Amino acid sequence: MYDLLKGLRVVEGSAFVAAPTCGLYLAQMGAEVIRFDNIGGGPDFRRWPLSESGLSLYWEGLNKGKKSVAIDLSRPEGKEIAQRLAAAPGEDGGLFVTNFPAEGFLAYEALAKLRADLVCVRVMGWADGSQGMDYTINAALGLPQMTGHPDDERPVNHVLAAWDLLTGAYCAFAMVSALLARQRDGQGREVRVPLSDVGAATMANLGFMAEAQLTGRQRERMGNDLYGAFGRDFVTRDGQRLMLLCVTPRQWSKALEALGITREVASLEGEVGVSFATDEGLRFTHRDRLYPLFERAFAARTAGELTPALDAGGVTWGAYQPLEAALRDRRLYKDNPLFQDVRHPSGLTYPAPGAMGTIPQDERRPVIPAPRLGQHTDEVLAGLLGLPGAEIARLHDQGIVA
Amino acid sequence: MYDLLKGLRVVEGSAFVAAPTCGLYLAQMGAEVIRFDNIGGGPDFRRWPLSESGLSLYWEGLNKGKKSVAIDLSRPEGKEIAQRLAAAPGEDGGLFVTNFPAEGFLAYEALAKLRADLVCVRVMGWADGSQGMDYTINAALGLPQMTGHPDDERPVNHVLAAWDLLTGAYCAFAMVSALLARQRDGQGREVRVPLSDVGAATMANLGFMAEAQLTGRQRERMGNDLYGAFGRDFVTRDGQRLMLLCVTPRQWSKALEALGITREVASLEGEVGVSFATDEGLRFTHRDRLYPLFERAFAARTAGELTPALDAGGVTWGAYQPLEAALRDRRLYKDNPLFQDVRHPSGLTYPAPGAMGTIPQDERRPVIPAPRLGQHTDEVLAGLLGLPGAEIARLHDQGIVA
Repeated sequence: MYDLLKGLRVVEGSAFVAAPTCGLYLAQMGAEVIRFDNIGGGPDFRRWPLSESGLSLYWEGLNKGKKSVAIDLSRPEGKEIAQRLAAAPGEDGGLFVTNFPAEGFLAYEALAKLRADLVCVRVMGWADGSQGMDYTINAALGLPQMTGHPDDERPVNHVLAAWDLLTGAYCAFAMVSALLARQRDGQGREVRVPLSDVGAATMANLGFMAEAQLTGRQRERMGNDLYGAFGRDFVTRDGQRLMLLCVTPRQWSKALEALGITREVASLEGEVGVSFATDEGLRFTHRDRLYPLFERAFAARTAGELTPALDAGGVTWGAYQPLEAALRDRRLYKDNPLFQDVRHPSGLTYPAPGAMGTIPQDERRPVIPAPRLGQHTDEVLAGLLGLPGAEIARLHDQGIVA
Repeated sequence: MYDLLKGLRVVEGSAFVAAPTCGLYLAQMGAEVIRFDNIGGGPDFRRWPLSESGLSLYWEGLNKGKKSVAIDLSRPEGKEIAQRLAAAPGEDGGLFVTNFPAEGFLAYEALAKLRADLVCVRVMGWADGSQGMDYTINAALGLPQMTGHPDDERPVNHVLAAWDLLTGAYCAFAMVSALLARQRDGQGREVRVPLSDVGAATMANLGFMAEAQLTGRQRERMGNDLYGAFGRDFVTRDGQRLMLLCVTPRQWSKALEALGITREVASLEGEVGVSFATDEGLRFTHRDRLYPLFERAFAARTAGELTPALDAGGVTWGAYQPLEAALRDRRLYKDNPLFQDVRHPSGLTYPAPGAMGTIPQDERRPVIPAPRLGQHTDEVLAGLLGLPGAEIARLHDQGIVA
């Protein structure tokens, strides 16, 4: 937690990954983020992995540091309360992030009637409003057929919901950008961020699209080979698998030195008549000639023997390890100052991270766990909407809030 | 291109994916982004894919709409020019994004001497400053062993540099957030965003980390199965592969209806004694019983026969298609208003996207291509640093700029 966004108030009506991570990043930089959910939880409230008590570790990971209001969104009065929350007054309020449909009761037009300068950031599936989720968008972009080993023609879906995550961070950027614009021109805006456009634009930004257009087909599947430079996994004498990357001339020369194959590679360069040092692409073109040299060098030594040489030489490499080993890795989880032991709504205590960025000039504030569902209903209805206690009691009695 | 960030001036000293995408997102929202590179290009200037003329489609994709200054960064005077650019004066300037080392000539302390309120966003590999790139961080987090089909134990690296992309978007968010804070408190700050922390925090935010801690081991590899709910690829009678997702109760019931297997699934529910509709996790637990029902339903019909039923029912599904087919897909590339035909520095004309978000209230401005290397050297040295023409000529003559 940092205070960069102190004083901002963001309302979140969301589910799944993209919109909740947007709210998470905003909250961890100091914004007050108020999330509303259906009573009993939205469609992501029971998402796996679950604790033994049946509460979602996923939900409590994505909603850290937010406030929670529970509303019956199927009823007109509940819908109206959600609208009023999204468009609540206040100079640094009127910031709403959602993945609700663009045409429903949380449409921009409906909310702008309540607050003309509302900034709304809306995660969508397809830009035309049709249903799409990370995995269907990904399938439409060709990536699953580019992923995996070339001796297996089955598509491989990603496990990390990369499009959702990229969309969420981009939405956080869009939110603060639209706020800056509003501070200048007083205008409200909706920024629509469809996964389909994030995917299509990103494949273009990285050159995949132009390549497919020029060659007439997408990049072929190539296992763990780094496209266009030198990189792959190699196995040591003791069966450890290491990832090696050599993109820059320095990364290349240092790796050859550390592995003791400088002379063999020079001899291959002479034979083929190229300079691998100065043209990373040639390392890729001739990778089938280079791989055996590297394979032998890795297979001749244990990971323990290789590590000092690779580290001392400033080589870009890393061991494959399962996540349970990462938990004991000082640089990732153990001793990482991002993480603090926190007691979560599931009742479990385990380390949780604050903001992913670190500001050396500022002090990190404590990590705040996710709320219990509805934990802040009364506080928010009274404080933000100004509802009197008797009115809040009525809403509870009628099951409109919880 | 939109104007949300109009008036901001960002300087970028960067390579690869994360920091350049940060600058790209800022530029596409209206900031003036000035990128400096070594004369002849940085370590990413020849990155594949290349045009036939040898120019990088990747570089020209990631640097659209930026200005380019070419400097000999190996010489003291060149380093000083880069420092002066990063810390150049101006109310909405002093914004610097980089992946240069935290301890080198572009260290925050060095730049803050030139401009005390500098905002610097720094992409790093490992948080401790050691070398790390997307693929080595990914290997350390366990994801390659979770990815791919369970009958193949080789790790599968991702093809999309997901950690780089997430880091880049988060950096754009961090940049604007730190600017908002500076407007309030006048303070400069460095925000360090290491790929290792982005990775570690994200695996925690999504529940992967808590799960590994509770169970003692990471999630097992499960091919294209959606973890914790129902989703997988299925093959139609004509050999088309479709991705189906059923997370919400509605997605589930609509899919069963469209596939005509509502009754069979109800019968299985009776036999097993569960309700798949109300608990998405049970669909995952019993997926080996459910899969044959779905496989038969898909195999009985062609994709052409299935499409109207799936679409009419509001089912969340999508076809796998290679990228060359996506180019003809109206919803992705063809007819997508994000894209415009642009002539790029490679000399090729092909469609390129503007901002990934769409603002219905604002007009999209034309997509601006990437610069030629050094295209804006003179303009920036004169306009931003106020160097007289004779001085700029000397720098050219001495090969310090180009």
